[in-house]
Amino acid sequence: MADKKIPYKIYLEENEMPKAWYNMRADMKNKPAPLVNPGTGQPLKKEELAPIFCEELVDQELDNDTAFVDIPEEIRGFYKMYRPSPLVRAYCLEEKLQTPAKIYYKFEGNNTSGSHKLNSAIAQAYYAKKQGLKGVTTETGAGQWGTALSMACSYFDLDCKVYMVKVSYEQKPFRREVMRTYGASVVPSPSETTDIGKKILAEHPGTTGSLGCAISEAVEVATKNPGYRYVLGSVLNQVLLHQSVIGLETKTALEKYDIHPDMIIGCAGGGSNLGGLIAPFMGEKLRGEADYRIIAVEPASCPSFTRGKFAYDFCDTGMICPLAKMYTLGSSFIPSANHAGGLRFHGMSTTLSQLYHDGFMEAVSVEQTEVFEAAEQFARVEGILPAPESSHAIRVAINEALKCKETGEEKTIVFGLTGTGYFDLVAYEKYNNGEMGDVIPTDEQIAESLAKLPQI
Amino acid sequence: MADKKIPYKIYLEENEMPKAWYNMRADMKNKPAPLVNPGTGQPLKKEELAPIFCEELVDQELDNDTAFVDIPEEIRGFYKMYRPSPLVRAYCLEEKLQTPAKIYYKFEGNNTSGSHKLNSAIAQAYYAKKQGLKGVTTETGAGQWGTALSMACSYFDLDCKVYMVKVSYEQKPFRREVMRTYGASVVPSPSETTDIGKKILAEHPGTTGSLGCAISEAVEVATKNPGYRYVLGSVLNQVLLHQSVIGLETKTALEKYDIHPDMIIGCAGGGSNLGGLIAPFMGEKLRGEADYRIIAVEPASCPSFTRGKFAYDFCDTGMICPLAKMYTLGSSFIPSANHAGGLRFHGMSTTLSQLYHDGFMEAVSVEQTEVFEAAEQFARVEGILPAPESSHAIRVAINEALKCKETGEEKTIVFGLTGTGYFDLVAYEKYNNGEMGDVIPTDEQIAESLAKLPQI
Repeated sequence: MADKKIPYKIYLEENEMPKAWYNMRADMKNKPAPLVNPGTGQPLKKEELAPIFCEELVDQELDNDTAFVDIPEEIRGFYKMYRPSPLVRAYCLEEKLQTPAKIYYKFEGNNTSGSHKLNSAIAQAYYAKKQGLKGVTTETGAGQWGTALSMACSYFDLDCKVYMVKVSYEQKPFRREVMRTYGASVVPSPSETTDIGKKILAEHPGTTGSLGCAISEAVEVATKNPGYRYVLGSVLNQVLLHQSVIGLETKTALEKYDIHPDMIIGCAGGGSNLGGLIAPFMGEKLRGEADYRIIAVEPASCPSFTRGKFAYDFCDTGMICPLAKMYTLGSSFIPSANHAGGLRFHGMSTTLSQLYHDGFMEAVSVEQTEVFEAAEQFARVEGILPAPESSHAIRVAINEALKCKETGEEKTIVFGLTGTGYFDLVAYEKYNNGEMGDVIPTDEQIAESLAKLPQI
Repeated sequence: MADKKIPYKIYLEENEMPKAWYNMRADMKNKPAPLVNPGTGQPLKKEELAPIFCEELVDQELDNDTAFVDIPEEIRGFYKMYRPSPLVRAYCLEEKLQTPAKIYYKFEGNNTSGSHKLNSAIAQAYYAKKQGLKGVTTETGAGQWGTALSMACSYFDLDCKVYMVKVSYEQKPFRREVMRTYGASVVPSPSETTDIGKKILAEHPGTTGSLGCAISEAVEVATKNPGYRYVLGSVLNQVLLHQSVIGLETKTALEKYDIHPDMIIGCAGGGSNLGGLIAPFMGEKLRGEADYRIIAVEPASCPSFTRGKFAYDFCDTGMICPLAKMYTLGSSFIPSANHAGGLRFHGMSTTLSQLYHDGFMEAVSVEQTEVFEAAEQFARVEGILPAPESSHAIRVAINEALKCKETGEEKTIVFGLTGTGYFDLVAYEKYNNGEMGDVIPTDEQIAESLAKLPQI
């Protein structure tokens, strides 16, 4: 098997696709800390979460024990429309770099939402429909999650209200039209349509928004409108659960060709892609069955893992959401408007935070211009224009491959190519025109927002 | 085999991908009429074409006899980066329509150029490189061909100058940035950079351009600059040859599951997608081995098959290119600016024109708003936002499926989904806002431009 010719793209057969999601928490000795009610300081109970989230999703959120959760037939049907996604051997990139490393990427961009976000969107829409809801609200940063949710809601005939971070709304007018084509309504955040939006606008006139602000607005609308719930595209345990489909497919594809990865690299904003990609590999690592280097890559302009604090914090800027114990820059942290694309969240998945804290993974931050350099290089040889988010992982994969070139080691690198950059052309234009810079927060800036962490 | 479960997506294995292109002309009794020198009125010889086109491409252009042309190893390598493309069973669309018809589509949009155009772009760039050229020039309408050529030139390190129809240049600013990311230079056409551009601007100030104008400009630049040749993304025989990879893959995929199509539907602008999709099926039909309904779908605003004349005409508005015998609206015909996307060419592939003339295929024209209706319906159930061009084929596929619903016939429909609509959001916005209309040329308009056909 070891010398079996590996194709450029490994596609699983339909019957090889996962029938259950995998929940990493089941294999963690130190479970992620529970969400906490900011009012009482006590762990949130199901009853407290149910007004915000769909019931079955609350169960998934709180379940730290069940390792495998069956994927409902309806969701598997939808998955078959755009999955399995290919695991690509980056032959052309390897040759360009003249590296002995073997590079693979799991490409999640071949669907109209342009990213992996659809994997969880369709699951969340399904459970909302099953509960008999009228619709859902959400926020979107780069627009990938909003598009994915619009598609999912259209499929299950649910109303969809999207609060879109203002800077992305302005940079990505076309995203709005895709969402509208799928029947969603899209509001730039912060907006005058919510109390919290009005408050943020009053305090920070001219703000370009943040994922935290948009979350606050979407939650407010969901809780004030009967028949609506809030859904979230990242950070939450349930989202990592759904996204495990990425890692499960990746693992099956690797095993088909007897490939043993040395390291697995993913970009990290809230953690949905990374958590999904690494899930089954982390499972083996947690159970002591195998070892891998697992590397989270984050932007230097929003470095929660590498410069944040592992502490309880609000998930939203408006401080109305539950508290989560995570690596955070403080819920008042807003990354520079110069930062392109997503990965703008101040915090990080509680599960990934715990795993990082316990030494099961590494984290590294990279600057924006080097990310776009890697994106351009990748696009030119691999033929895919990558999303800025995904390009963080490309940057580090290339760096690791170049290290192999120096040492002569034939390491096997797997990274997550979460999406395409079709809607990030304003950022590419800036880069093409040499107008893109790096803006890294000062220690004082981070200390200032961390000083506002809730006391718990 | 007949009851073998058909997956949502049929992907061929790498070793099942075509190793040779198929040339329909070899099986045609009535060959397409030769290109003619507008000065002499005589069929063009290789020596006359060589200053415009790459040598090996001229050979392919003129070769009416060789049925199979080996695909060079370098091109097959590039194909493996983004091919095979999936043949998708439109289970969700079938269910939505409640039709007994079985609908399949060959999806060519899963690459960064967003369309099938890359299939020929990489071939043409390869032959240009092989000939030792510095670079190539071309025109682009909707931007798909220009993007594809930019990617191909970047891969082979060739300079790439793209003349982009002005209306598309303005409607699709992001296309320009993708091309720039791949290192191409992009000029809106008509422009002041060429003699013919200046002439057209003087005669038609404020024109939104046409593919014909842009062709004239690109040809002028190629012939005036040593080391450059002109390449074209549609219409030509060589392009249909390269695009046969679409039909060959489709046929292999269908045969794997013992599926026998009743009809094959493709959109037609210059004919590259349609000619590629139908190639091997038409081959069987020409050889009397099988029969299929083959349907070309064109926009009512640019209806060369259905309202044009089968006659010799210039391929370009500037009247400097060779004459081709084809269905044409006259080289001075410019479709309404209200018409969205590509399919703006006044003429049609000579090969397809001959086949249509000889009764081997049908043609139908559809109006723009019904096309976008079909696009939206398709996007919502199949999860892919289609290009406006491709949506012409979707419209007719849906119409045919609805006829089956009436008659109860379980026909098998295959159509070409040539690309994604990610860069057509201005058009979708217009449609979403109810601002899109149908503009159909009057008989007088068409008669006027046909009156200017060259006498030959």
